[in-house]
Amino acid sequence: MLGRLNHVAIAVPDLAAASEIYRDTLGAKLTEAQILPEHGVTVVFIDLGNTKIELLEPLGADSPIAAFLAKNPSGGMHHVCYEVPNILAARDRLKEQGARILGDGEPKIGAHGKPVLFLHPKDFNGTLIELEQA
Amino acid sequence: MLGRLNHVAIAVPDLAAASEIYRDTLGAKLTEAQILPEHGVTVVFIDLGNTKIELLEPLGADSPIAAFLAKNPSGGMHHVCYEVPNILAARDRLKEQGARILGDGEPKIGAHGKPVLFLHPKDFNGTLIELEQA
Repeated sequence: MLGRLNHVAIAVPDLAAASEIYRDTLGAKLTEAQILPEHGVTVVFIDLGNTKIELLEPLGADSPIAAFLAKNPSGGMHHVCYEVPNILAARDRLKEQGARILGDGEPKIGAHGKPVLFLHPKDFNGTLIELEQA
Repeated sequence: MLGRLNHVAIAVPDLAAASEIYRDTLGAKLTEAQILPEHGVTVVFIDLGNTKIELLEPLGADSPIAAFLAKNPSGGMHHVCYEVPNILAARDRLKEQGARILGDGEPKIGAHGKPVLFLHPKDFNGTLIELEQA
C-alpha cells in the first residue's frame, strides 16, 4: 500500500528565518512562500531531488500546527506524508486493521490539491502520518 | 549543498511490534532487522521507492536514541538524513555559517558505511539533521 515518500513536514515558528537557514546555511533549493488560508499554514517547499521538505508556519488562530508549536516553540518534525494509489482503499484497510483516522474519516483535499487523510500518531509509534492519493 | 533525502529515522521502543504495524497495517516493504552494535541500534529499513524509513530500536545501555525514547516512550521521528557530495566541504561551510556540529566535528562512519555528521537541532528548528556523504 505505502508508495513514495511525498514529503516530510517541519513546523517552524518563523518561516522567513527558517528559509534563510535552509537556503544559506544548508544550500537548499526553496520555493517562494505560499499562503494557504484553507489549511491554516504558510508553506515553503524544499526540493531534494527525490522528495521534498515542507516548512510550515502557522497561519491564523486555528492553525492545525499551533498546538505543536506551543509544545515545541523552536519547531520540529511534524509529519511524514506517504503516497497511496487509492485513498479510500487505504482508509478501509486501515480501519479493518484497527488504526484510527483523524477527523471524520473522510479524505479532505490537501495542500497539493489531492485527497489526503491523517492517521492517529498513537497507532504509529508517535509519528503523525499523512496519506495522499498519488 | 543539500542533496537527496537519504532517510527519515523513526525511533521505536519495540522493533518487532513497529515492523508488524508498517508491514501489516501500512503494507510497506521491510528488510530483516540488522543489529548494529557499533551504532547502538537495531534497524529495519522500509523501502519507499524514492527514499527510505529507518526504524531504530535502542541496543545496549549507551544507545544514542535512549534519551529520545525516555522522553518519547512510544517513539517518534528522530532525525532526517540528507546526502551531500563532500562531507568535509559541507562541514566547513556549516562551521563558517555558525552552525554547530555534534561531537568532535569529525565525520564518523555511519550505518551505511559512509562518512556522516550530525548537526545541532537547536540550529535547525528543532530538527536533528544527519549529513551523509553520497
